[in-house]
Amino acid sequence: MEPLCALAYARRYRSRFIDELKQFVRFPSISNQSRHDPDVRRCASWLADHLRSIGLDQVRIISTKRHPIVYATWRRAGKKPTLLIYGHYDVQPVDPLQEWRTPPFRPVVKGENLYGRGACDDKGQLFTHVKALESYLKTERKLPVNVKCIFEGGEELGDSPGLESFLNRNKSALRADAAVMSDTRMLGPNRPALGYAQRGNLRFELEVQGPRHDLHSGNFGGAIRNPLEVVCEIVAGLQDSEGRITVPGFYEKVREWSDDEREYMAKSGPKDAEILRDAGAAEPWGEPGYSLYERVTIRPSLSVSGIRGGYQGTGVKTVIPARASAKISVRLVPDQDPREIEELFRKHFAQVAPSTVSVKMRTLAASSSALVNRNHPALEAAAFAYQKGFGTRPVFLRSGGSIPAASMFQKILGIPTVLMGFALPDDRIHAPNEKFHLPTFFRGIETSIWYMAAAAQLRTHASRSGKKSRQERPA
Amino acid sequence: MEPLCALAYARRYRSRFIDELKQFVRFPSISNQSRHDPDVRRCASWLADHLRSIGLDQVRIISTKRHPIVYATWRRAGKKPTLLIYGHYDVQPVDPLQEWRTPPFRPVVKGENLYGRGACDDKGQLFTHVKALESYLKTERKLPVNVKCIFEGGEELGDSPGLESFLNRNKSALRADAAVMSDTRMLGPNRPALGYAQRGNLRFELEVQGPRHDLHSGNFGGAIRNPLEVVCEIVAGLQDSEGRITVPGFYEKVREWSDDEREYMAKSGPKDAEILRDAGAAEPWGEPGYSLYERVTIRPSLSVSGIRGGYQGTGVKTVIPARASAKISVRLVPDQDPREIEELFRKHFAQVAPSTVSVKMRTLAASSSALVNRNHPALEAAAFAYQKGFGTRPVFLRSGGSIPAASMFQKILGIPTVLMGFALPDDRIHAPNEKFHLPTFFRGIETSIWYMAAAAQLRTHASRSGKKSRQERPA
Repeated sequence: MEPLCALAYARRYRSRFIDELKQFVRFPSISNQSRHDPDVRRCASWLADHLRSIGLDQVRIISTKRHPIVYATWRRAGKKPTLLIYGHYDVQPVDPLQEWRTPPFRPVVKGENLYGRGACDDKGQLFTHVKALESYLKTERKLPVNVKCIFEGGEELGDSPGLESFLNRNKSALRADAAVMSDTRMLGPNRPALGYAQRGNLRFELEVQGPRHDLHSGNFGGAIRNPLEVVCEIVAGLQDSEGRITVPGFYEKVREWSDDEREYMAKSGPKDAEILRDAGAAEPWGEPGYSLYERVTIRPSLSVSGIRGGYQGTGVKTVIPARASAKISVRLVPDQDPREIEELFRKHFAQVAPSTVSVKMRTLAASSSALVNRNHPALEAAAFAYQKGFGTRPVFLRSGGSIPAASMFQKILGIPTVLMGFALPDDRIHAPNEKFHLPTFFRGIETSIWYMAAAAQLRTHASRSGKKSRQERPA
Repeated sequence: MEPLCALAYARRYRSRFIDELKQFVRFPSISNQSRHDPDVRRCASWLADHLRSIGLDQVRIISTKRHPIVYATWRRAGKKPTLLIYGHYDVQPVDPLQEWRTPPFRPVVKGENLYGRGACDDKGQLFTHVKALESYLKTERKLPVNVKCIFEGGEELGDSPGLESFLNRNKSALRADAAVMSDTRMLGPNRPALGYAQRGNLRFELEVQGPRHDLHSGNFGGAIRNPLEVVCEIVAGLQDSEGRITVPGFYEKVREWSDDEREYMAKSGPKDAEILRDAGAAEPWGEPGYSLYERVTIRPSLSVSGIRGGYQGTGVKTVIPARASAKISVRLVPDQDPREIEELFRKHFAQVAPSTVSVKMRTLAASSSALVNRNHPALEAAAFAYQKGFGTRPVFLRSGGSIPAASMFQKILGIPTVLMGFALPDDRIHAPNEKFHLPTFFRGIETSIWYMAAAAQLRTHASRSGKKSRQERPA
């Protein structure tokens, strides 16, 4: 049956949906800066109230060791399949603030876009599903499937620290047939994409301690090792000139893909020129023998995202800093194990550290890569929904980013995750002037409406296992 | 004649002198952060008022292209020699602020030390001479020599931008027989040192521009060159593992010193162990074949004092920054020319810059090294003053720092500069918790009193040239 009423509702209330999304974006819910912890909590509370207002049941704010999870269900669809809808309401920091043309937490519509930190990643994308749920519940008073929503506040920490134990504690309460999340990219406004792979991530800080206190570079320059220079040396040594990571053993478990898969990728994925254009870069870089799309998906990579130590203000402060550090993010692919890779780096640093300073590696987050079978019926249902929502079939894409939730759902709940991303390549997620393309927001809502309709046809866990799902409360 | 009244006055009013120095330190006169420009002006104005109050003449605040110079004279000593007293009332930035145990601009006395930014460098040291002048003027109503004071507000910019043109414009008004300044270090509380050499300085920023905007490291990591990594690579390549600078031609004009001079240095200068202890470092580093004292004085050096780009906050922001930069300070020795060295770096960067990014060098300051004949009578007079003020003869030392004023006085006014430093090795100048050792402050004042008495015996410019100095007003 076609969800005509829900679709009509979704079209009718677009402008209110934008206003509500703006309210959502206004919370500076930056999860990795503890001074924003109260904002994260206020944002969770706003989201919970909102979910109640659209008619979801069992809405709860569940504490974790870091930020709360907002949980909600609608389980009145009887023997219909159960969808787990995932999203995250936390956002990335806003630095460098001076490059924002409008304040990051005062969302504003300009042209076809809504600007603000989190407008796209992930508040806007999460909201497509919330508005789809509302469109059903406010018109038909029911959903075509059972639904369990998990909206977490720790995704941008890199390893969703509260999620894993929440899933482990509530395995049976969270039983579902498939998960869906929108936190990945399309190829362009009319080129929807369905994700089937994510890279893993190992994030750490390399810390170098030199003299006991900062020194004047005139008085000591030339005689005392500068920790900032040691950081540069070690960092510069982590990759060769073509981007290959030089840490011994690093590539040992990297999976080589069949010609078939690589041909499929070449056919379906973005071309080098597109990736360069989206990046705003003049020239490609990286491992020879792989397309840019392959380099950012089936090949691991290393990025230095910041270096601390010394003086960052205007002008010069002629100092040898006492300590310095580099923030490093390593993207992992099948079948690399984050903990094994961590050990390789640790050994490498111990080996290259000069005796004049002390070098430490502090791991901040680690998550595995995730991979879904491209032919799973849940993905086929999503492809159908895209056909309806965007008028075109999506391509099946790998993503270079990391969503720990997807690999946890696979590992802990044993379900595939449909990566139904609505971010455009130029949405500048994680960067200044992040935006969300509103026509894509509206199409996203309709796609989610269609997806629920299509998912009603999936074979259920219960029908597969013969067990009856119990009503359980998550803890 | 012994300056007994002045000395008695200086001893009597020590506690008031500390209170006045605290007032002076309270101004956040950070010269290289333009938001502090008004503080720099207020500090200049306070200093000018203070100089008037102790009885100096012709006190003026003279504008330059950057920060004002506070000028004052006392020229009623007839045919006696003329001393030019130099100091700077501007200070270094305070980052990292969180490492200060007390706020940098709320000076506080703890034990024998006064803590605060500028307490030592250079407000406290400048103040030794001001209090010496006061001690004479308030007791004997006269000075033993003519005096011209130049207190500038741009020393910490690295090249004293307003000073050179001020000196050039007022060559004859500023005629003097010797300059004296206190902006260098002693070897220890009872080990005074007279500076006779300073290194020059070339300060620049290396800027690397990559993609048009910051990128998500998941989506682009492995395919797009990261400017921060390029900065690390270029910086790491500027020195070999023993600290030798690898820029072609860099050492070409570095003067080799005679065995005599190196023996004198070995005898008079700090030992390796002392330099290490002062630095709070476990191990030495740098050019083999030179003592640590030689490495920081007669050998050039390069220090990276900060790296910008990406994310410096807590946690990780997984970003490939659009641009990154390094702040670099190169200390120069005779006979290196700062402009020639600048060209060598420029050429080097053009050569090593990868085509995937654009690399720029932005020069911030450049100054030559300075050198005074160790046997000049002005230094002998200073040695006598130290003998009186500290009860021990000073050693003659080279300094690794850079005071552009000293080389300008030599070049433009043709006079030697006596570097009568009162900073202790552990005063943490340019670093958090800067302090000034108050017993050294008091001895410094008495040394300055004795120095003026001794300088009265110097052969004057007028007696050498037969010309009569005219009364002129500086412009």
